[in-house]
Amino acid sequence: MKVEAGAIWADVVKIREEAPLIHNITNYVVMNSTANALLALGASPVMAHSEEEAADMVKIARSLVINIGTLSPAWVRAMGKAAAQAKEQGVPVILDPVGAGATPYRSRTARELLSGGGAYIIRGNASEIRALVESGATTKGVDSTSAAEDSIRAARELARAHRCTVCVSGATDYIITGEHTIKVLNGHPMMPRVTGLGCTASALCGAFAAVNRSPHLAAAHAMAVMGIAGEIAAEQASGPGSLQLHFIDALYNLSLEQIERKLRVES
Amino acid sequence: MKVEAGAIWADVVKIREEAPLIHNITNYVVMNSTANALLALGASPVMAHSEEEAADMVKIARSLVINIGTLSPAWVRAMGKAAAQAKEQGVPVILDPVGAGATPYRSRTARELLSGGGAYIIRGNASEIRALVESGATTKGVDSTSAAEDSIRAARELARAHRCTVCVSGATDYIITGEHTIKVLNGHPMMPRVTGLGCTASALCGAFAAVNRSPHLAAAHAMAVMGIAGEIAAEQASGPGSLQLHFIDALYNLSLEQIERKLRVES
Amino acid sequence: MKVEAGAIWADVVKIREEAPLIHNITNYVVMNSTANALLALGASPVMAHSEEEAADMVKIARSLVINIGTLSPAWVRAMGKAAAQAKEQGVPVILDPVGAGATPYRSRTARELLSGGGAYIIRGNASEIRALVESGATTKGVDSTSAAEDSIRAARELARAHRCTVCVSGATDYIITGEHTIKVLNGHPMMPRVTGLGCTASALCGAFAAVNRSPHLAAAHAMAVMGIAGEIAAEQASGPGSLQLHFIDALYNLSLEQIERKLRVES
Repeated sequence: MKVEAGAIWADVVKIREEAPLIHNITNYVVMNSTANALLALGASPVMAHSEEEAADMVKIARSLVINIGTLSPAWVRAMGKAAAQAKEQGVPVILDPVGAGATPYRSRTARELLSGGGAYIIRGNASEIRALVESGATTKGVDSTSAAEDSIRAARELARAHRCTVCVSGATDYIITGEHTIKVLNGHPMMPRVTGLGCTASALCGAFAAVNRSPHLAAAHAMAVMGIAGEIAAEQASGPGSLQLHFIDALYNLSLEQIERKLRVES
Repeated sequence: MKVEAGAIWADVVKIREEAPLIHNITNYVVMNSTANALLALGASPVMAHSEEEAADMVKIARSLVINIGTLSPAWVRAMGKAAAQAKEQGVPVILDPVGAGATPYRSRTARELLSGGGAYIIRGNASEIRALVESGATTKGVDSTSAAEDSIRAARELARAHRCTVCVSGATDYIITGEHTIKVLNGHPMMPRVTGLGCTASALCGAFAAVNRSPHLAAAHAMAVMGIAGEIAAEQASGPGSLQLHFIDALYNLSLEQIERKLRVES
Repeated sequence: MKVEAGAIWADVVKIREEAPLIHNITNYVVMNSTANALLALGASPVMAHSEEEAADMVKIARSLVINIGTLSPAWVRAMGKAAAQAKEQGVPVILDPVGAGATPYRSRTARELLSGGGAYIIRGNASEIRALVESGATTKGVDSTSAAEDSIRAARELARAHRCTVCVSGATDYIITGEHTIKVLNGHPMMPRVTGLGCTASALCGAFAAVNRSPHLAAAHAMAVMGIAGEIAAEQASGPGSLQLHFIDALYNLSLEQIERKLRVES
């Protein structure tokens, strides 16, 4: 499975034409920026976290993004219900285990959500991915402290156990499915200085999973688009404030020519 | 009732001078952008959603904006209490039935809030307005799928039944009170690509309702200012990221001369 | 205790080098902008409000920022637990009593949090600080209506009673500890037109408290950096939308030379 500019572009065109509804049960910090990123890409975001409707919203959605960044018991129950509905309907579920490893509650919740089944893509930083596999792994808040090698091993284990794609994001993004690994080298060092761009990456995985039947390629295309838009934004930015603005504009204006010129992947 | 640049400007001046307190019980996605829009216009926003204080906050507010975008039972109870207090005091209530029609819970909640009485202005897109009247109407998430004619008929029915003003927003905004209709043609096609500008429109209805005793004119003035600020912003924007920034700056810098030059209404 | 550019800069360098984890239990309106400000300064923000983990997150944090802007009973319980854990570990607690005086619930909650002990820095506007001391003091929503003199008297009383630093922010910021007062004159009149810059100031107090053992100087340094970044941003801004963006960029790019050139304090 190779990642090619033309195939990424075909997905972007589909997202723009079909405007798939992406249901997000995500954290308070990033709701606004996540919705704006999905809209800029061409998707149609909706946020609905109440147990009273989370499963109903899945019925009209093309993918479900679950992000535990500011979790609490009522929200976790709704995540479970939404995920169960998604599994029943075959709607792709993207899981972002924000801060797994930072507190026992986060690690436990992330594992419980996984054990419910149906995960299609798991995206996290190195520490978070490790914390899903190794009970001793720790995280400094929501930022990664793990080495790439350890997290890749954990990701492979996770991908096999849950028959899903695992994306370990960082300076290099590793997209892992079974024996296959894609490395996405795009991105810019200033991106981690904008809050929630990791959460945005998970949301974009949801948008690409809505139009591409391979979780492996959907995740790789999402990460490539994230990185390329980030690079374009960084060329115009004078700090993380302007980077965030230009990132949204770059997603909106993304062209095949830009993808062809900037794409850096190894697969 | 005609919409004139001078009357819009008189309201803007009043908002800037009096800085009316606008109490918002709104959704997580837009709280920040809503607060910034109200501040940029000159109003004083407050957000307080707890049952413990929602009614108390109404006591010092000049209008109440209720938005069900990320509803849950505790929030809905607080919305009910705040609305009851507003009704008792004669504080204008603006209702934004975000996503009505998308799930049974949203449709039911929007209707229950309406049945409590006291709605002054209802603002939604075509699908949402229809869902308040027709139980079969459906919505794709939070974006509209309805034709203008059907929604105008629904809006008129709603306006009569609840003796309030109904604003159906879209490429053209229809402001409907009894037999009267105002069409606001201002706006820009990129605006729906910024999350929550519909919610911002509802909040601005709250600001104008705080200084203008006619709900019909308050809603029309709010929609005209939204559209004009959006047009000014679009002239400088290269995507939805920069549109959002320039929109806030345009609200802050809005002048009578700009309103006179750009206003496009039919009444 | 004098405020000097070199000492402010030493703290900024420490924050950038150590990236201290700042745990925020704050309001929905400002979570995104607060996280971005902390990241731009060089700190590592985390938001975790659930009773299930709030205390656990304190265990890995270097300071705790409690902000009651959109309080509700479950959140207040988590604030109490986190504050108790912080007190036990000696982690500095910054309290931002947003809207104290606006409703009985807010005033009562702010006082209860204070009575739990452990406050290190309290930061609020004049009305909020008064409401912590005088039961009759009232607030118009979340904006101040009090005269500086009355609030300074209240701040001094508060600082003595709780043996902490109290920062009354406004056009001039007063940082009060026991008999000592520092006045920070930096800032720009457009800053209150951006929502949540007061909350950002409290979060920056958390970042400086993580690297500076004097609460008096930590608060003064934070307020000076806020004001200087605001002034730099205002030079480039054409409204509150662009001010917010440039403020983040200014925090990220802040230099010793800028601090030396712009610092205006009286101590």
